[in-house]
Amino acid sequence: MTMGDPAGIGPEIIVKAFCERPELQRQMVVVGDVATLQRAAQRLSAKSKPLMLAEVTDLDDLADVPPGCMAVVQVCRLSQPVVVGRISAHAGRAAADCIAWAAQAALQGRARAMVTAPIHKEALAQAGVEHPGHTELLQALSAAYLDVAVADLPVRMMLSCPGLSTVLVSIHVSLRQALDAVTTEQVLRTIRITHGHFQRTGMSRPRIAVAGLNPHAGEGGLFGREDRDVIAPAIELARQQGIEASGPHAPDTVFMRARQGSFDVVVAMYHDQGLIPVKLLGLDHGVNTTLGLPFVRTSPDHGTAFDIAGAGLASPRSLLAAIDAALAATVTF
Amino acid sequence: MTMGDPAGIGPEIIVKAFCERPELQRQMVVVGDVATLQRAAQRLSAKSKPLMLAEVTDLDDLADVPPGCMAVVQVCRLSQPVVVGRISAHAGRAAADCIAWAAQAALQGRARAMVTAPIHKEALAQAGVEHPGHTELLQALSAAYLDVAVADLPVRMMLSCPGLSTVLVSIHVSLRQALDAVTTEQVLRTIRITHGHFQRTGMSRPRIAVAGLNPHAGEGGLFGREDRDVIAPAIELARQQGIEASGPHAPDTVFMRARQGSFDVVVAMYHDQGLIPVKLLGLDHGVNTTLGLPFVRTSPDHGTAFDIAGAGLASPRSLLAAIDAALAATVTF
Repeated sequence: MTMGDPAGIGPEIIVKAFCERPELQRQMVVVGDVATLQRAAQRLSAKSKPLMLAEVTDLDDLADVPPGCMAVVQVCRLSQPVVVGRISAHAGRAAADCIAWAAQAALQGRARAMVTAPIHKEALAQAGVEHPGHTELLQALSAAYLDVAVADLPVRMMLSCPGLSTVLVSIHVSLRQALDAVTTEQVLRTIRITHGHFQRTGMSRPRIAVAGLNPHAGEGGLFGREDRDVIAPAIELARQQGIEASGPHAPDTVFMRARQGSFDVVVAMYHDQGLIPVKLLGLDHGVNTTLGLPFVRTSPDHGTAFDIAGAGLASPRSLLAAIDAALAATVTF
Repeated sequence: MTMGDPAGIGPEIIVKAFCERPELQRQMVVVGDVATLQRAAQRLSAKSKPLMLAEVTDLDDLADVPPGCMAVVQVCRLSQPVVVGRISAHAGRAAADCIAWAAQAALQGRARAMVTAPIHKEALAQAGVEHPGHTELLQALSAAYLDVAVADLPVRMMLSCPGLSTVLVSIHVSLRQALDAVTTEQVLRTIRITHGHFQRTGMSRPRIAVAGLNPHAGEGGLFGREDRDVIAPAIELARQQGIEASGPHAPDTVFMRARQGSFDVVVAMYHDQGLIPVKLLGLDHGVNTTLGLPFVRTSPDHGTAFDIAGAGLASPRSLLAAIDAALAATVTF
């Protein structure tokens, strides 16, 4: 589990998660900075039993960690404490280093899954990281490890909450760029990645609903033609390949229908189309899963919450849901 | 109350609403076709006491309607019954005629509000109506009545469900066109119309949250510049005019925050941004209100449901919520 941006709520929700679920100490190692996590544990100790940390140099040392201690691999030693709640290149670099280290461990098969605490995209950019978020960064690291082109390792973001899962055709781009990313090839690829993930996690014929792009999925072509001309052919191709895909469905009702049980997952055409319903229903139980990587990767669906970082107010619910999702997926993946 | 498309669920949910709430018979007149509504009443009578209809020629006749009868103004006599569940120019024309009649009654002050049952946009188009939906049609009729240009009578669609209201910058256009409609002028206008509506219905300082356009409201410019360059200036201008507007907020969390009580209403940048959360939360209690018209107009937030029309399965919940919203708004409007 990566620490996330040290100026955000990552360190404190990690400490809270381990305090709440002591059995995690046998299953997970935190990749981060011991001093930062130590401060988070101390700040929270007024409210609960202080959590002990054990610095380890690699994952193999987990067996030697004393009971009751949270194991931390010291990856990104910060020369001085970061200012909590403030964007900095310093913090962005530390977060990126943790991700890179954990990704290598997962790629080499030394870790079975990776759970990531939130990072701040501006801090990442200030640190000179050219990828806007975890998903793109992990894709690039995996492609480099496998020695394939990034384009040959397509990944997708899945957001889930109890009762609703959605996979996005595109994520961290402007809405104008997202429209251009809606091509028959990209939609078909998203459907196939979604199908593959659900099959790997034990569902033989997942029912995949594909959302339209325009209001009412174009209302027969009156409000845009992408639904008919671009999305429908992708669904047809997927069906020819034996995938149970349907649509394009009206975006404003497909999520309601999925939640009512008509579909197992919704393929959404852009970031907010999928995230608005999941955040609304998920409250603090949302989980982000990256599909298409050679390993399991999950994360909470919230950000660094700089406004409350360090105050001890952040909830570990979504992180715990992400941990549970990672543990569950590694059983069958 | 207009009958809606006679091939849809409009007639049956109107009959169900009047059966369930007999007191409506003293407050509302249905504008439609007596024979169509009679057939709907007969189809439903196996399940409940049959509803009696009374044909009236104008609204003034309401006082003469016998107790227990639903008053119907015969506006769009259909030469032959429409085929239930099928799109036709015939049905689209009948629906449009009812809307035109009811709008005149409201514009002339003979009716205090207008509730509309669902129409089918393709049927409307086949009938040669150049406006894609109720909102645009009512705007054009009102502008003509007031003898002003349509552009001088800006209207907006508000969707509401218990706990969440959202007003849309644009509605029935493709998403590409919706992006072009996000201008500082249009966003400011939407905020002002929203403010005016809430003030007229009794709230002195409504807290208006303005959603961003891009993921994370652009994440500081990384994912698009409209949030900073177009939306933020509109909010600033609104605040200078004494309006309690805030944002641009990240689209994927602003609706959750509004529902939690942080805001009274959310201004959404395009159709599905606002409708996805309201449909998800509203289930069958969503209400559509047109803001900016010289009269109150509400409708249920579902469509004609051709797939179940005539089967007696459609729920009158959303229509009843629309009726209640119209009755409540006319108290203060």
